Amino acid sequence: MSCDFRFLIPCALVFLWHPALAAKHASMPEVLAASSAADWRPLDPENTLYVELPNGRVVIELAPAFAPLHVVNIKTLTRAGYFNGLSIIREQDNYVAQWGDPDNRHPLPPGIGKVAAEFDSALPPHMAFTPLPDGDVYAPEVGFSNGLPVARSAPLHKVWLAHCYGMVGVGRDLDPESGSGAEMYVVIGHAPRHLDRNVALVGRVLKGIELLSSLPRGSAPMGFYDKNEKPLPIKSIRVAADVPAAERSNLEVIRTDTPTFAAVVESRRNRPEDFFKTPAGRIDLCNVPIAVRERPAAK
Amino acid sequence: MSCDFRFLIPCALVFLWHPALAAKHASMPEVLAASSAADWRPLDPENTLYVELPNGRVVIELAPAFAPLHVVNIKTLTRAGYFNGLSIIREQDNYVAQWGDPDNRHPLPPGIGKVAAEFDSALPPHMAFTPLPDGDVYAPEVGFSNGLPVARSAPLHKVWLAHCYGMVGVGRDLDPESGSGAEMYVVIGHAPRHLDRNVALVGRVLKGIELLSSLPRGSAPMGFYDKNEKPLPIKSIRVAADVPAAERSNLEVIRTDTPTFAAVVESRRNRPEDFFKTPAGRIDLCNVPIAVRERPAAK
Repeated sequence: MSCDFRFLIPCALVFLWHPALAAKHASMPEVLAASSAADWRPLDPENTLYVELPNGRVVIELAPAFAPLHVVNIKTLTRAGYFNGLSIIREQDNYVAQWGDPDNRHPLPPGIGKVAAEFDSALPPHMAFTPLPDGDVYAPEVGFSNGLPVARSAPLHKVWLAHCYGMVGVGRDLDPESGSGAEMYVVIGHAPRHLDRNVALVGRVLKGIELLSSLPRGSAPMGFYDKNEKPLPIKSIRVAADVPAAERSNLEVIRTDTPTFAAVVESRRNRPEDFFKTPAGRIDLCNVPIAVRERPAAK
Repeated sequence: MSCDFRFLIPCALVFLWHPALAAKHASMPEVLAASSAADWRPLDPENTLYVELPNGRVVIELAPAFAPLHVVNIKTLTRAGYFNGLSIIREQDNYVAQWGDPDNRHPLPPGIGKVAAEFDSALPPHMAFTPLPDGDVYAPEVGFSNGLPVARSAPLHKVWLAHCYGMVGVGRDLDPESGSGAEMYVVIGHAPRHLDRNVALVGRVLKGIELLSSLPRGSAPMGFYDKNEKPLPIKSIRVAADVPAAERSNLEVIRTDTPTFAAVVESRRNRPEDFFKTPAGRIDLCNVPIAVRERPAAK
């Protein structure tokens, strides 16, 4: 339990309960240190990808709730070994890292073709949604749904994933249905929110994004690597469920529908650390950190 | 001249004047291609820094209008050769690249001491300001002043620079006046706007940011490099005015108080390119590109 005035959780109780929370409100490290096991959720191995690069592993959580057809395609491609031996082909500064097969070295496996443009969805009546209080430049309402940054519009009856840092999308051509999942990109710069509702977002990098964001930028147009540049090879992409348990990344993610998460948001809206002389009092959707950690050993 | 309904520039005239602008409104490349020499301004060599790295040059435009005392300090440090032979000491993913002298290898030159905390300024009555129309999460009003992203508040009678990608700030300790300019950072991730009004921003990277953003991330806390990691050396930092003319970067920047710039903003609020099926209709301050180009040879 954490103190948050917006949600009317009695702060006096928290002050008694955890001394670290008594001065101002708590900082994010303090909130996380005081969290309970129930504030975290494990990853679903069926919807987790491991991108194995020469210098380490990138862990992606897929978002079947938002792009079910793309997720099916991506898992089919992954299980067919389609990505193994391909490369990071594009590295555009302040924008995206992207992988794919521009030279058609790997044939698409059977069953992979055009996919409906899952750029947004009808607003499901019972979808988890933790709203943020400070507005958004691009959408009437923003918040989190199971750890994912989400925008929604009641007038449009639509919900969609937002292009925050670390989000994973599916490259496409001009045809909105041309994104099969064979090319994917990861946002590595200031949130390109103008891509929202124009591309299918399919998940989020939970770990290892620095392996993608720190690559040399490509010198060809749009950050593609030129012929004389050496793209980083992808050893493999695997569905976590297909990986022996001992080789899996044992991660858990903070739940975004709890008082603890509300306290995280508040700790970042008004940073209590001594460094901050003028707390912002507000927060942008893409500045809210979604904590990921190694899963503690069972007691 | 460019077509922009917000500023009531007659669009029919533009359609006659440049065929590329006739279909929808113009894309950014079309707007820039149709710009005139008067839409661009040269850099002031007295307020331009060259950061020479082993792999190339980073060009920084200083912002004396917003942080005059820090800019004086930085130029004093630069002209004393203080930065030559120091290193990039911090590389934190989705946050900042930072240089400085944590081991106190270089003594501070005379005259460098505490500086007033230039985190914001009283709103000058005649400061150039081109407002953006779509609001902001952090400030009542945002826009551009001589190419710099600016936030302002009429109630507070304050104006301040915004922490967009590529902005350059001055590292400090807990004391607000402890940032001499001897440590500087560059934003290399999603705009950390919570730093606004908490740190002195002193300029913007105009060219070469990819040399800073693509470095390996530091593994020590806050992205500092660990003892076993090899930080990138800084060959030198120089004021452009001190560099022989033949060795200078010959850049110019788009003016942000012209109809051409208004057309650039509109071209990004509603992307006319065929790829975009649902134009955003809005734009975030830090998503507006401020074009920089090689200065064309005089005719």
